[in-house]
Amino acid sequence: MTDENASVDPRFERVAIIGLGLIGGSLGHAIKRGKLAAHVAGYARSAETRARALEIGFVDSAHETAADAVKNADLVVICTPVGALGPVAAEIEPHLKRGAILTDVGSVKMAVVRDIGPYVPEGVHFIPGHPIAGTEQSGPDSGFAELFDGRWCILTPGPGADRDAVAKLAAFWQACGSKVDYMEPKHHDLVLAIVSHLPHLIAYNIVGTADDLETVTESEVIKYSAGGFRDFTRLASSDPTMWRDICLNNKDAILEMLGRFSEDLSAMQRMIRWGDGEGLFNLFTRTRAVRRSIIEAGQDTAAPNFGRTPAQKK
Amino acid sequence: MTDENASVDPRFERVAIIGLGLIGGSLGHAIKRGKLAAHVAGYARSAETRARALEIGFVDSAHETAADAVKNADLVVICTPVGALGPVAAEIEPHLKRGAILTDVGSVKMAVVRDIGPYVPEGVHFIPGHPIAGTEQSGPDSGFAELFDGRWCILTPGPGADRDAVAKLAAFWQACGSKVDYMEPKHHDLVLAIVSHLPHLIAYNIVGTADDLETVTESEVIKYSAGGFRDFTRLASSDPTMWRDICLNNKDAILEMLGRFSEDLSAMQRMIRWGDGEGLFNLFTRTRAVRRSIIEAGQDTAAPNFGRTPAQKK
Repeated sequence: MTDENASVDPRFERVAIIGLGLIGGSLGHAIKRGKLAAHVAGYARSAETRARALEIGFVDSAHETAADAVKNADLVVICTPVGALGPVAAEIEPHLKRGAILTDVGSVKMAVVRDIGPYVPEGVHFIPGHPIAGTEQSGPDSGFAELFDGRWCILTPGPGADRDAVAKLAAFWQACGSKVDYMEPKHHDLVLAIVSHLPHLIAYNIVGTADDLETVTESEVIKYSAGGFRDFTRLASSDPTMWRDICLNNKDAILEMLGRFSEDLSAMQRMIRWGDGEGLFNLFTRTRAVRRSIIEAGQDTAAPNFGRTPAQKK
Repeated sequence: MTDENASVDPRFERVAIIGLGLIGGSLGHAIKRGKLAAHVAGYARSAETRARALEIGFVDSAHETAADAVKNADLVVICTPVGALGPVAAEIEPHLKRGAILTDVGSVKMAVVRDIGPYVPEGVHFIPGHPIAGTEQSGPDSGFAELFDGRWCILTPGPGADRDAVAKLAAFWQACGSKVDYMEPKHHDLVLAIVSHLPHLIAYNIVGTADDLETVTESEVIKYSAGGFRDFTRLASSDPTMWRDICLNNKDAILEMLGRFSEDLSAMQRMIRWGDGEGLFNLFTRTRAVRRSIIEAGQDTAAPNFGRTPAQKK
């Protein structure tokens, strides 16, 4: 892809970012870093977020309505939780510039096509997208320019998508630091169910289980969390609205993956109950290779404990 | 505890470390850092590990048998996987010095009392222990002096344990950087089942589930692992022998916690199937407070993504 797009100019005259949280904010920072737009217009529901975004400087103008923000924009990126995409699309539809590219960053793609699709005017290029990057933090202060560096951004253009518009959007994401891939929306939702949705749901679930115990106190869980539990609490402190919307909008793929996970867990439970040491050893061995591959692919650090700084003595 | 032990000398004349992997090695480094022993004697099964430990310098002598290593030691710390504790205890029993303290670092404590207890000679102080610290790495090169800094070490002395010996061992662990707590072995095993054993088993399980999919390729799982999956692969690349032994030796507590986790997962699955957005939102909200407490307790970093260094562009 890099070679193919080498000649495409990744810059836009005016970009509108709808939603100024972790992803919208990081996108603003990445655009500023790469000088990828002459003007970045932003919209957020809360006046406080809009003021903060202007103050930090990752947008050049902040607007009280999404309709106002998208006027004359050549690229519109919707960065709200997935549940808000439909209403936003309905609101901005009459104000989109002819020839503009409309995209999003939602963690599900079939629902995005369903919710935004009906509101795309003739002459506007709708190309759904999803950068696979994030942290557990949210809000306008959580974004940073490097978030997308070395991470994949998946685009799911429809069958009739304009080739030039797709190439332009791909070049833009590459200039933001991403690597770009293409998928069918349905396959995207299945892949994300296993690499992202299931991990988050399991993390939320185990933190809930620990919180409910009568025999082990919350203070014990916290004190001894370096035994492994703390790793899960990072994912489990992600934005609740975002994750509720993902669950409601990728039901089938998530239920499929949860079903497989539960079956496997039952099989492991049985090995533990019956003392099948060989079976457990084999399961625990095959998983090491996966981490090695992830580190080799540049998707995680090789440093022990994710390179966490050593604890402070207290 | 710190005040209580302030007057206790944490140093030993001669310490023997049986098993020179991540924990044994880190202990050697911590002893050297704190000048806590005049001589550190080490034993490892493999000649290569013994040579490497001497070369790195976290032991002063390396011995071909555990029996040889413990001779004249005032403190003996068994750092092998839990399954090897019984045979090691049987081997060293006739060679332990009268008045010596015998301890271990095993992740389960009831089985340790069961396996080591019968081999403790009259006049030797057996005080089981467990530092809640580690990384996903193993072997003699994986240890470092700071591993125990700010982490808890749980001691489970029996009802007839010598007070002075317990205070001495506690002072030693504090000098290695740890904070010290006391528990009944049974309660320890229950606490560890939720803060450590269940997180590791779930991590191993999800990596296995992902590896078995026909619809999503392994290469896709690796490329998009920054969506959350990569966090699990760290725990799932821990030492397989260690984790097999933990499963075989903390069966009841692990099955209890797995049972609760599965029930909660089924309840969540039902919320997703029936589109219970409010229930999901509530679950996803209550977990944030737990992470905040862990960070406040100094048991994890507040930096986003565990403070991972930004990815390299490739």
